[in-house]
Amino acid sequence: MKALVYNGPGRKSLEERPVPQIQSPGDAVVRITKTTICGTDLHILKGDVPTCAPGRILGHEGVGVVHAVGAGVTSFHEGDRVLVSCISACGKCEYCRRGMYSHCTTGGWILGNEIDGTQAEFVRIPHADTSLYHISDGADEAALVMLSDILPTGFECGVLNGKVEPGSSVAIVGAGPIGLAALLTAQFYAPAQIIMVDMDQNRLEVAKRFGATHTVDAAATDPAVAVMAITGGRGVDTAIEAVGVPASFVTCENIIAAGGTIANVGVHGVKVDLHLETLWSRNITITTRLVDTVTTPMLLKTVQSGRIDPATLITHRFTLDRILDAYETFGHAAETHALKVLIET
Amino acid sequence: MKALVYNGPGRKSLEERPVPQIQSPGDAVVRITKTTICGTDLHILKGDVPTCAPGRILGHEGVGVVHAVGAGVTSFHEGDRVLVSCISACGKCEYCRRGMYSHCTTGGWILGNEIDGTQAEFVRIPHADTSLYHISDGADEAALVMLSDILPTGFECGVLNGKVEPGSSVAIVGAGPIGLAALLTAQFYAPAQIIMVDMDQNRLEVAKRFGATHTVDAAATDPAVAVMAITGGRGVDTAIEAVGVPASFVTCENIIAAGGTIANVGVHGVKVDLHLETLWSRNITITTRLVDTVTTPMLLKTVQSGRIDPATLITHRFTLDRILDAYETFGHAAETHALKVLIET
Amino acid sequence: MKALVYNGPGRKSLEERPVPQIQSPGDAVVRITKTTICGTDLHILKGDVPTCAPGRILGHEGVGVVHAVGAGVTSFHEGDRVLVSCISACGKCEYCRRGMYSHCTTGGWILGNEIDGTQAEFVRIPHADTSLYHISDGADEAALVMLSDILPTGFECGVLNGKVEPGSSVAIVGAGPIGLAALLTAQFYAPAQIIMVDMDQNRLEVAKRFGATHTVDAAATDPAVAVMAITGGRGVDTAIEAVGVPASFVTCENIIAAGGTIANVGVHGVKVDLHLETLWSRNITITTRLVDTVTTPMLLKTVQSGRIDPATLITHRFTLDRILDAYETFGHAAETHALKVLIET
Amino acid sequence: MKALVYNGPGRKSLEERPVPQIQSPGDAVVRITKTTICGTDLHILKGDVPTCAPGRILGHEGVGVVHAVGAGVTSFHEGDRVLVSCISACGKCEYCRRGMYSHCTTGGWILGNEIDGTQAEFVRIPHADTSLYHISDGADEAALVMLSDILPTGFECGVLNGKVEPGSSVAIVGAGPIGLAALLTAQFYAPAQIIMVDMDQNRLEVAKRFGATHTVDAAATDPAVAVMAITGGRGVDTAIEAVGVPASFVTCENIIAAGGTIANVGVHGVKVDLHLETLWSRNITITTRLVDTVTTPMLLKTVQSGRIDPATLITHRFTLDRILDAYETFGHAAETHALKVLIET
Repeated sequence: MKALVYNGPGRKSLEERPVPQIQSPGDAVVRITKTTICGTDLHILKGDVPTCAPGRILGHEGVGVVHAVGAGVTSFHEGDRVLVSCISACGKCEYCRRGMYSHCTTGGWILGNEIDGTQAEFVRIPHADTSLYHISDGADEAALVMLSDILPTGFECGVLNGKVEPGSSVAIVGAGPIGLAALLTAQFYAPAQIIMVDMDQNRLEVAKRFGATHTVDAAATDPAVAVMAITGGRGVDTAIEAVGVPASFVTCENIIAAGGTIANVGVHGVKVDLHLETLWSRNITITTRLVDTVTTPMLLKTVQSGRIDPATLITHRFTLDRILDAYETFGHAAETHALKVLIET
Repeated sequence: MKALVYNGPGRKSLEERPVPQIQSPGDAVVRITKTTICGTDLHILKGDVPTCAPGRILGHEGVGVVHAVGAGVTSFHEGDRVLVSCISACGKCEYCRRGMYSHCTTGGWILGNEIDGTQAEFVRIPHADTSLYHISDGADEAALVMLSDILPTGFECGVLNGKVEPGSSVAIVGAGPIGLAALLTAQFYAPAQIIMVDMDQNRLEVAKRFGATHTVDAAATDPAVAVMAITGGRGVDTAIEAVGVPASFVTCENIIAAGGTIANVGVHGVKVDLHLETLWSRNITITTRLVDTVTTPMLLKTVQSGRIDPATLITHRFTLDRILDAYETFGHAAETHALKVLIET
Repeated sequence: MKALVYNGPGRKSLEERPVPQIQSPGDAVVRITKTTICGTDLHILKGDVPTCAPGRILGHEGVGVVHAVGAGVTSFHEGDRVLVSCISACGKCEYCRRGMYSHCTTGGWILGNEIDGTQAEFVRIPHADTSLYHISDGADEAALVMLSDILPTGFECGVLNGKVEPGSSVAIVGAGPIGLAALLTAQFYAPAQIIMVDMDQNRLEVAKRFGATHTVDAAATDPAVAVMAITGGRGVDTAIEAVGVPASFVTCENIIAAGGTIANVGVHGVKVDLHLETLWSRNITITTRLVDTVTTPMLLKTVQSGRIDPATLITHRFTLDRILDAYETFGHAAETHALKVLIET
Repeated sequence: MKALVYNGPGRKSLEERPVPQIQSPGDAVVRITKTTICGTDLHILKGDVPTCAPGRILGHEGVGVVHAVGAGVTSFHEGDRVLVSCISACGKCEYCRRGMYSHCTTGGWILGNEIDGTQAEFVRIPHADTSLYHISDGADEAALVMLSDILPTGFECGVLNGKVEPGSSVAIVGAGPIGLAALLTAQFYAPAQIIMVDMDQNRLEVAKRFGATHTVDAAATDPAVAVMAITGGRGVDTAIEAVGVPASFVTCENIIAAGGTIANVGVHGVKVDLHLETLWSRNITITTRLVDTVTTPMLLKTVQSGRIDPATLITHRFTLDRILDAYETFGHAAETHALKVLIET
């Protein structure tokens, strides 16, 4: 089968690989019909993710059809159309029982990282019963690819952890795909204000169309000053960090209202300054989270009932043959205006 | 009346002052019968609290008897025995309605800071109806002085914010009066482990008597290594920072289990390093809080029902005449083994 | 001044009364500009509310302008435009501090019940600082009259108590003004299904326009059977009872999914059968609540930000002179299709 | 092997049966070392549980040693000492993922009901990975038998659902084994008052020793009157129904404070009267629950750390040979003063 392989920092290729086989009773093999590329894949290609060894097939998002199942799989059968979660969860360990699938002792984020991933014609999924989801007839499969990772990430790490509430003020720092996923799902809770902060004018325009009540161009103005002005000097109840660099986290510290919550979503490579000399008395909460995908069943319902349409995040479409072009397009988002690129087999 | 007055950095004196008068309809004047000294008073004396101007009577803790009330006070009358909260709350503003009395727009921590305080024979209490509490007959008033500040502080900022639960593991970094108040009140929730960390052997011994299951001498060992060993490498579910320096906060970062909560209680003077490069994916929560004293009615019930006896925190007793000696004793706690010093008029 | 007076069961009249005066330091007198009639007013007129004595001016909803304030009022001044809450709250008692304003020991629902109400040119409001709300410039005052009672009632007693969540299934039994207020505010939480049950075709059509995903005509079909069919036999996660009779409560018992919540909003005159012989093992929750109006500030934000427009509930408008006609219209809702009738002075 | 078999209403016998075999990959067979009898077993013997067919081996509590495991079991191995949960949970279905193991679509309470149970030398446990728990070395296995059912039942259905809090008032109606389990675990949350209500003087004396602050003899006094007197007319914050008859549920309705919670634990055979004509405005919550045993890991920690000792519930011990005598003793608890009877193989 064809597969996109990481060959060490800066190197990737579309290669021929053997179709994966069932290895454990809980495994399924899924024929991928649609997948996509994540910002994390670009991190891997820069060499920033040491758990991902050269030779690995990348990708942790996708939908497809069940090709084979192990003896212990009870919820899925050959031919079932399925959504692949980016997180593999055993459903048994202490962390899975607490809903922290991200910390599953034999799973977590392993797809396209510690084991071969979804940017291929087939993928092996461990713990299939608790890591795949049924797709109902008539569903828009392209939209559902967004539920493998970015929608639950924006929702769980940003919106839920950030405790967005009706009438509240929200700032989302970073209008990339994850920030926009937070923007879409924040609207489940009817906040009064959603302020998007980014340096890319195109993304801010997209944010406006997606429901932002205000946008702040961080290239043109000090974003903290702008957000404080929009909120009448009060700050926001929820600040969602969706970039992953110290400056944007400090912006969140500077705009959070007393009693508010900073929900970190970004993947950080270095430490940040936490200004406890002012924040110690401000009754704030800071959260971090690797997505658990525990809300996937709920998100499926909101998509099926038409409350949100995550297909709006897809800007480009490619066949698997042209996945290297897809990487080019996604990797130069400032010029291509790419958000999510869909790859179909 | 006699009053302990702050005269600028490093200077204090016991002076004669006029008895305070009712200034607003919501005021009460309370004759103080018992008060105490807080670590924050020492901070003021070092010049670290710019909101506290020279000439200020210090003190934000105490019990007493209502001496006079303004026309708008409905819940208290002359002669009522009362507990003074360290936080003044109007009960009307947005923050008070949300239970964030600490951020009351016309109150908060003002006693012995922005207005004259309780280390005197009399004190004026603004917003008396929502800043005083009735004391029931037969109550141990010395014990109740601990409910003005340190018990709600340890409980709200440490135990509640830290989400201590039955069966959980808790570390409290800092075994001073506030850390010990957290230790006492953490036991409301039956955690399986409470690990106290300090460099003072005497305080660790007190902690053992107060219910700590483990103690770690941070002068003799790396506290993070010790806590990880006690918890079998897993870390603690709740880490309570009760010192207020970067090193102890970083210890909390190093011992927090995935999914756990760091509850900051300490007053910090400088920023700390937040190691998001490791914590971003650990599903942790960090909280800060200036005590709101919203749990004072509940704490009164637990004291009255005998669930805790905060009088055990009192190590020394003085009359108001000798308050300068009380400051000496409290200021040299390492030698005197002082925890809380009671001052009676 | 003109006032609508209850003269005992079945008797009411528009009378001339003296303008009310400040009686306590916390009082305000408000000149009413807009008021409305509540289903509860009809209950009073039937003689069903023994706390309401003949001679009482009715009404507990309205907006107006502050005419006079007592010496203890600090948040409002003559000329301020204000929303009157149906619940008077002292902000000081145990219940107010817990956010249970409905059980305020010196307040609660007293307006137009134990003291004179808002269907008059002026009304005296006790505990003004915590029972009135500022109206911002440019607000639609007719819309805000809906925030005195029915919007917080539908939201607090129905939606919040019912724990409506994104993707969940909700049934609202009763499509009168309160049920429709629950329907409007349930959409703050993006449920996948909102099923409205009523016997009035007109109200069901209104419900469709207001966002119901399904309607059930209880005059034509067994509503429990219909709701179970709509939910694939699973039942609803939230059942909101907005009628106040045994049959509709039992419908809720019959349609609630395992793990679901029945939120009672209706005012009941007799006991109901609770079928614990089946429900004991179904992990359900039942809640009751008299509205606390603690969410009024939040609801004001959602109206100001355009998330909802409660003016859509207003079907008829009258001047105070014609309030008897307004009662006629409201009292014959089946024929007049009245939802809320606005009365302007 | 020997097994206690239900032979239809009123008939049971100790019989010889074949040792159960692995049937599915997720099964384990456990050699039972200790088991006990539950009040539910008596219900079955009366013929009240139609899902339990004649020929069934009874029992849903026990500890033992793993004898064999299916191919899909990963967490347990032959020779492991284990606690058997009364609830079988697949860990995969919608309900299991929500922590509602009681409603597992292929599990729930099936042991000793729909499939053969634990009152035997061996038992087959479906979904073993998520229905068994490891026992640590040195644990008191007799104490742990109480964790199969009654401790999680009292804790989850009574204490957690009842929202017991520090300083609160709790009444537990029914001082049988489940009521006493609620009493033991309520103390995890340091309530100020725990009032036990029963008609059996012996059980009330046991309750006193187990930590009740007050006892009410319902044979000698109207329990609602007595509880209202103890609480100064205010009622209790939490009322736990642990009997399962209408009268005791109505007692809970009569003693619940405004804002309080009635947590039903009892198994009811008939409907009860819910007095909504008074309760509709009292802001109360009523909960029902079949135990989910999701707190078993937490309860294991509290037992291991010595916070509670559930072995105190064991009043009598028998060998499996004498299980008919054990039933006699347990079935005549009023005379024998039996609480839990331990049966050892």
